Amino acid sequence: MNTTDIFPKGQQLPNDWFVGNAFLTPLVTKDKNNEFSAGCVTFEPGARTNWHTHPKGQVLIVIEGSGFYQEKDSPAKPINKGDVINIPENIEHWHGASATSKMIHIAITNFKDDISVTWLNPVTEEEYKSVQ
Amino acid sequence: MNTTDIFPKGQQLPNDWFVGNAFLTPLVTKDKNNEFSAGCVTFEPGARTNWHTHPKGQVLIVIEGSGFYQEKDSPAKPINKGDVINIPENIEHWHGASATSKMIHIAITNFKDDISVTWLNPVTEEEYKSVQ
Repeated sequence: MNTTDIFPKGQQLPNDWFVGNAFLTPLVTKDKNNEFSAGCVTFEPGARTNWHTHPKGQVLIVIEGSGFYQEKDSPAKPINKGDVINIPENIEHWHGASATSKMIHIAITNFKDDISVTWLNPVTEEEYKSVQ
Repeated sequence: MNTTDIFPKGQQLPNDWFVGNAFLTPLVTKDKNNEFSAGCVTFEPGARTNWHTHPKGQVLIVIEGSGFYQEKDSPAKPINKGDVINIPENIEHWHGASATSKMIHIAITNFKDDISVTWLNPVTEEEYKSVQ
Protein backbone atom coordinates (compact mmCIF):
# COMPACT_ATOMS: atom_id res chain seq x y z
CA MET A 1 0.00 0.00 0.00
CA ASN A 2 1.39 3.37 -1.07
CA THR A 3 1.70 5.52 2.05
CA THR A 4 -0.19 8.33 0.30
CA ASP A 5 -3.17 6.07 -0.41
CA ILE A 6 -6.15 6.44 1.92
CA PHE A 7 -7.48 2.88 1.64
CA PRO A 8 -5.99 -0.51 0.73
CA LYS A 9 -6.47 -1.40 -2.94
CA GLY A 10 -8.69 -4.33 -1.99
CA GLN A 11 -9.88 -7.29 -4.03
CA GLN A 12 -9.85 -7.40 -7.83
CA LEU A 13 -13.28 -6.99 -9.38
CA PRO A 14 -14.51 -9.65 -11.81
CA ASN A 15 -14.04 -9.23 -15.55
CA ASP A 16 -17.68 -10.27 -15.94
CA TRP A 17 -18.53 -6.67 -14.98
CA PHE A 18 -15.27 -4.73 -15.48
CA VAL A 19 -12.77 -4.42 -18.34
CA GLY A 20 -9.14 -4.30 -17.17
CA ASN A 21 -7.90 -4.20 -13.59
CA ALA A 22 -10.30 -2.71 -11.05
CA PHE A 23 -10.25 -3.29 -7.29
CA LEU A 24 -12.73 -2.82 -4.41
CA THR A 25 -12.30 -2.07 -0.72
CA PRO A 26 -15.74 -2.21 0.95
CA LEU A 27 -16.30 0.65 3.43
CA VAL A 28 -19.97 0.48 4.50
CA THR A 29 -22.55 -2.31 4.30
CA LYS A 30 -26.26 -1.52 3.93
CA ASP A 31 -27.87 -1.76 7.36
CA LYS A 32 -30.87 -0.49 9.32
CA ASN A 33 -29.67 3.14 9.20
CA ASN A 34 -27.65 3.26 5.98
CA GLU A 35 -29.85 2.57 2.96
CA PHE A 36 -26.73 2.31 0.80
CA SER A 37 -23.43 0.51 0.57
CA ALA A 38 -20.15 2.35 0.09
CA GLY A 39 -16.77 1.26 -1.19
CA CYS A 40 -13.51 2.52 -2.63
CA VAL A 41 -12.89 1.44 -6.24
CA THR A 42 -9.45 1.69 -7.86
CA PHE A 43 -9.28 1.59 -11.66
CA GLU A 44 -5.85 1.04 -13.18
CA PRO A 45 -5.22 2.94 -16.46
CA GLY A 46 -7.61 1.59 -19.12
CA ALA A 47 -9.91 -0.10 -16.59
CA ARG A 48 -13.64 0.65 -16.59
CA THR A 49 -16.99 -0.73 -15.53
CA ASN A 50 -19.30 -2.41 -18.02
CA TRP A 51 -22.32 -0.38 -19.03
CA HIS A 52 -24.79 -0.65 -16.13
CA THR A 53 -27.76 0.94 -14.35
CA HIS A 54 -28.66 1.61 -10.71
CA PRO A 55 -32.36 1.39 -9.76
CA LYS A 56 -31.98 4.16 -7.10
CA GLY A 57 -28.85 5.96 -8.34
CA GLN A 58 -25.28 6.16 -7.07
CA VAL A 59 -22.90 8.92 -5.95
CA LEU A 60 -19.23 8.86 -7.03
CA ILE A 61 -16.65 10.91 -5.11
CA VAL A 62 -13.34 10.94 -7.02
CA ILE A 63 -10.41 10.91 -4.58
CA GLU A 64 -7.45 10.30 -6.93
CA GLY A 65 -6.49 10.49 -10.60
CA SER A 66 -8.51 11.05 -13.76
CA GLY A 67 -11.07 9.18 -15.80
CA PHE A 68 -14.44 9.36 -17.48
CA TYR A 69 -18.16 9.11 -16.70
CA GLN A 70 -20.48 8.55 -19.67
CA GLU A 71 -24.24 8.18 -19.96
CA LYS A 72 -25.58 6.32 -23.01
CA ASP A 73 -26.03 8.57 -26.08
CA SER A 74 -24.24 11.49 -24.34
CA PRO A 75 -20.62 12.68 -24.57
CA ALA A 76 -18.21 11.26 -21.98
CA LYS A 77 -17.45 13.66 -19.13
CA PRO A 78 -13.85 13.85 -17.86
CA ILE A 79 -13.74 13.35 -14.08
CA ASN A 80 -10.89 14.23 -11.76
CA LYS A 81 -9.88 14.14 -8.09
CA GLY A 82 -12.39 16.18 -6.08
CA ASP A 83 -15.33 15.70 -8.49
CA VAL A 84 -18.70 14.38 -7.28
CA ILE A 85 -21.10 12.67 -9.71
CA ASN A 86 -24.75 12.14 -8.71
CA ILE A 87 -25.85 9.34 -11.06
CA PRO A 88 -29.62 9.22 -11.72
CA GLU A 89 -31.70 6.06 -11.40
CA ASN A 90 -32.10 3.71 -14.40
CA ILE A 91 -29.63 5.59 -16.66
CA GLU A 92 -27.29 3.33 -18.63
CA HIS A 93 -23.72 4.53 -17.99
CA TRP A 94 -20.10 3.56 -17.29
CA HIS A 95 -17.15 5.02 -15.38
CA GLY A 96 -13.48 4.26 -15.23
CA ALA A 97 -9.89 5.45 -15.54
CA SER A 98 -8.42 7.22 -18.54
CA ALA A 99 -6.07 5.22 -20.77
CA THR A 100 -3.04 6.85 -19.13
CA SER A 101 -4.05 7.57 -15.50
CA LYS A 102 -5.47 5.54 -12.68
CA MET A 103 -8.70 6.78 -11.09
CA ILE A 104 -9.96 6.07 -7.56
CA HIS A 105 -13.48 6.88 -6.39
CA ILE A 106 -15.65 6.25 -3.39
CA ALA A 107 -19.03 4.90 -4.58
CA ILE A 108 -22.17 5.33 -2.44
CA THR A 109 -24.77 3.00 -3.95
CA ASN A 110 -28.47 3.16 -3.11
CA PHE A 111 -30.76 0.13 -3.06
CA LYS A 112 -34.28 -0.41 -4.37
CA ASP A 113 -35.89 -3.65 -3.21
CA ASP A 114 -32.42 -5.03 -2.36
CA ILE A 115 -31.11 -4.39 -5.89
CA SER A 116 -28.33 -1.82 -6.35
CA VAL A 117 -27.00 -2.48 -9.88
CA THR A 118 -27.90 -4.20 -13.15
CA TRP A 119 -24.87 -5.10 -15.25
CA LEU A 120 -24.96 -4.81 -19.05
CA ASN A 121 -22.42 -5.11 -21.89
CA PRO A 122 -18.71 -4.26 -21.71
CA VAL A 123 -17.51 -0.85 -22.91
CA THR A 124 -15.81 -1.91 -26.13
CA GLU A 125 -12.30 -0.82 -27.12
CA GLU A 126 -13.88 1.28 -29.87
CA GLU A 127 -16.26 3.01 -27.43
CA TYR A 128 -13.46 3.54 -24.90
CA LYS A 129 -10.88 4.85 -27.39
CA SER A 130 -13.39 7.33 -28.82
CA VAL A 131 -13.63 9.25 -25.51
CA GLN A 132 -9.88 9.65 -24.77
CA MET B 1 -5.77 24.92 -1.55
CA ASN B 2 -2.89 22.50 -0.98
CA THR B 3 -2.39 20.54 -4.21
CA THR B 4 -2.46 17.28 -2.25
CA ASP B 5 -5.90 18.08 -0.81
CA ILE B 6 -8.86 16.36 -2.47
CA PHE B 7 -11.49 19.04 -1.75
CA PRO B 8 -11.43 22.78 -1.00
CA LYS B 9 -11.44 23.55 2.72
CA GLY B 10 -14.86 25.21 2.39
CA GLN B 11 -16.70 27.50 4.79
CA GLN B 12 -15.93 27.78 8.48
CA LEU B 13 -18.45 26.02 10.72
CA PRO B 14 -20.13 28.03 13.49
CA ASN B 15 -18.75 28.00 17.03
CA ASP B 16 -22.31 27.43 18.21
CA TRP B 17 -21.73 23.78 17.28
CA PHE B 18 -17.95 23.43 16.99
CA VAL B 19 -15.00 24.34 19.23
CA GLY B 20 -12.00 25.71 17.33
CA ASN B 21 -11.63 25.98 13.56
CA ALA B 22 -13.65 23.49 11.49
CA PHE B 23 -14.66 23.86 7.84
CA LEU B 24 -17.25 22.24 5.54
CA THR B 25 -17.33 21.58 1.81
CA PRO B 26 -20.80 20.16 0.92
CA LEU B 27 -20.59 17.20 -1.51
CA VAL B 28 -24.12 15.75 -1.77
CA THR B 29 -27.54 17.18 -0.88
CA LYS B 30 -30.39 14.90 0.23
CA ASP B 31 -32.65 14.28 -2.77
CA LYS B 32 -35.16 11.76 -4.11
CA ASN B 33 -32.52 8.99 -4.42
CA ASN B 34 -30.01 9.89 -1.72
CA GLU B 35 -31.61 9.73 1.73
CA PHE B 36 -28.51 11.40 3.20
CA SER B 37 -26.32 14.44 2.81
CA ALA B 38 -22.54 14.19 2.48
CA GLY B 39 -19.76 16.68 3.06
CA CYS B 40 -16.05 17.00 3.71
CA VAL B 41 -15.20 18.39 7.16
CA THR B 42 -11.72 19.71 8.00
CA PHE B 43 -10.80 20.06 11.69
CA GLU B 44 -7.68 22.08 12.47
CA PRO B 45 -5.63 20.80 15.46
CA GLY B 46 -7.75 21.12 18.62
CA ALA B 47 -11.03 21.55 16.72
CA ARG B 48 -13.98 19.28 17.47
CA THR B 49 -17.74 19.05 17.21
CA ASN B 50 -19.96 19.72 20.21
CA TRP B 51 -21.54 16.66 21.74
CA HIS B 52 -24.45 15.71 19.45
CA THR B 53 -26.77 12.93 18.27
CA HIS B 54 -28.05 11.76 14.87
CA PRO B 55 -31.60 10.35 14.74
CA LYS B 56 -30.66 7.88 11.95
CA GLY B 57 -26.89 7.63 12.39
CA GLN B 58 -23.93 8.91 10.39
CA VAL B 59 -20.90 7.39 8.65
CA LEU B 60 -17.47 9.05 8.93
CA ILE B 61 -14.73 8.21 6.41
CA VAL B 62 -11.40 9.67 7.57
CA ILE B 63 -9.34 10.81 4.56
CA GLU B 64 -6.51 12.73 6.26
CA GLY B 65 -4.80 13.14 9.62
CA SER B 66 -5.66 11.93 13.11
CA GLY B 67 -8.28 12.63 15.73
CA PHE B 68 -10.80 11.12 18.07
CA TYR B 69 -14.35 9.73 18.14
CA GLN B 70 -15.99 9.40 21.54
CA GLU B 71 -19.40 8.13 22.65
CA LYS B 72 -20.72 9.40 26.01
CA ASP B 73 -19.50 7.30 28.97
CA SER B 74 -17.07 5.35 26.76
CA PRO B 75 -13.32 5.82 26.17
CA ALA B 76 -12.36 8.01 23.18
CA LYS B 77 -11.29 6.04 20.12
CA PRO B 78 -8.31 7.34 18.11
CA ILE B 79 -9.23 7.65 14.42
CA ASN B 80 -6.84 7.94 11.51
CA LYS B 81 -6.77 8.29 7.72
CA GLY B 82 -8.55 5.29 6.19
CA ASP B 83 -10.82 4.59 9.19
CA VAL B 84 -14.60 4.28 8.79
CA ILE B 85 -16.92 4.93 11.76
CA ASN B 86 -20.56 3.81 11.58
CA ILE B 87 -22.23 5.98 14.24
CA PRO B 88 -25.46 4.52 15.69
CA GLU B 89 -28.69 6.47 15.98
CA ASN B 90 -29.39 8.58 19.10
CA ILE B 91 -25.95 8.03 20.69
CA GLU B 92 -24.43 11.17 22.23
CA HIS B 93 -20.91 11.56 20.80
CA TRP B 94 -18.29 13.94 19.39
CA HIS B 95 -15.47 13.79 16.83
CA GLY B 96 -12.60 16.02 15.93
CA ALA B 97 -8.88 16.50 15.42
CA SER B 98 -6.19 15.65 17.94
CA ALA B 99 -4.51 18.56 19.72
CA THR B 100 -1.47 18.30 17.39
CA SER B 101 -2.84 17.05 14.02
CA LYS B 102 -5.56 18.15 11.67
CA MET B 103 -8.22 15.59 10.75
CA ILE B 104 -10.38 15.53 7.60
CA HIS B 105 -13.37 13.22 7.18
CA ILE B 106 -16.19 12.74 4.75
CA ALA B 107 -19.49 12.58 6.69
CA ILE B 108 -22.52 10.76 5.25
CA THR B 109 -25.48 11.84 7.38
CA ASN B 110 -28.85 10.08 7.34
CA PHE B 111 -32.16 11.85 7.92
CA LYS B 112 -35.20 10.90 9.97
CA ASP B 113 -38.24 13.11 9.34
CA ASP B 114 -35.95 15.78 7.84
CA ILE B 115 -33.77 15.93 10.98
CA SER B 116 -30.14 14.79 10.71
CA VAL B 117 -28.50 16.11 13.89
CA THR B 118 -29.32 17.45 17.37
CA TRP B 119 -26.59 19.67 18.82
CA LEU B 120 -25.74 19.55 22.54
CA ASN B 121 -23.03 21.04 24.79
CA PRO B 122 -19.43 21.81 23.78
CA VAL B 123 -16.69 19.29 24.53
CA THR B 124 -14.95 21.14 27.38
CA GLU B 125 -11.18 21.68 27.54
CA GLU B 126 -11.10 19.22 30.44
CA GLU B 127 -12.99 16.54 28.48
CA TYR B 128 -10.83 17.15 25.40
CA LYS B 129 -7.48 17.16 27.23
CA SER B 130 -8.33 13.92 29.03
CA VAL B 131 -8.43 11.93 25.77
CA GLN B 132 -5.12 13.13 24.22
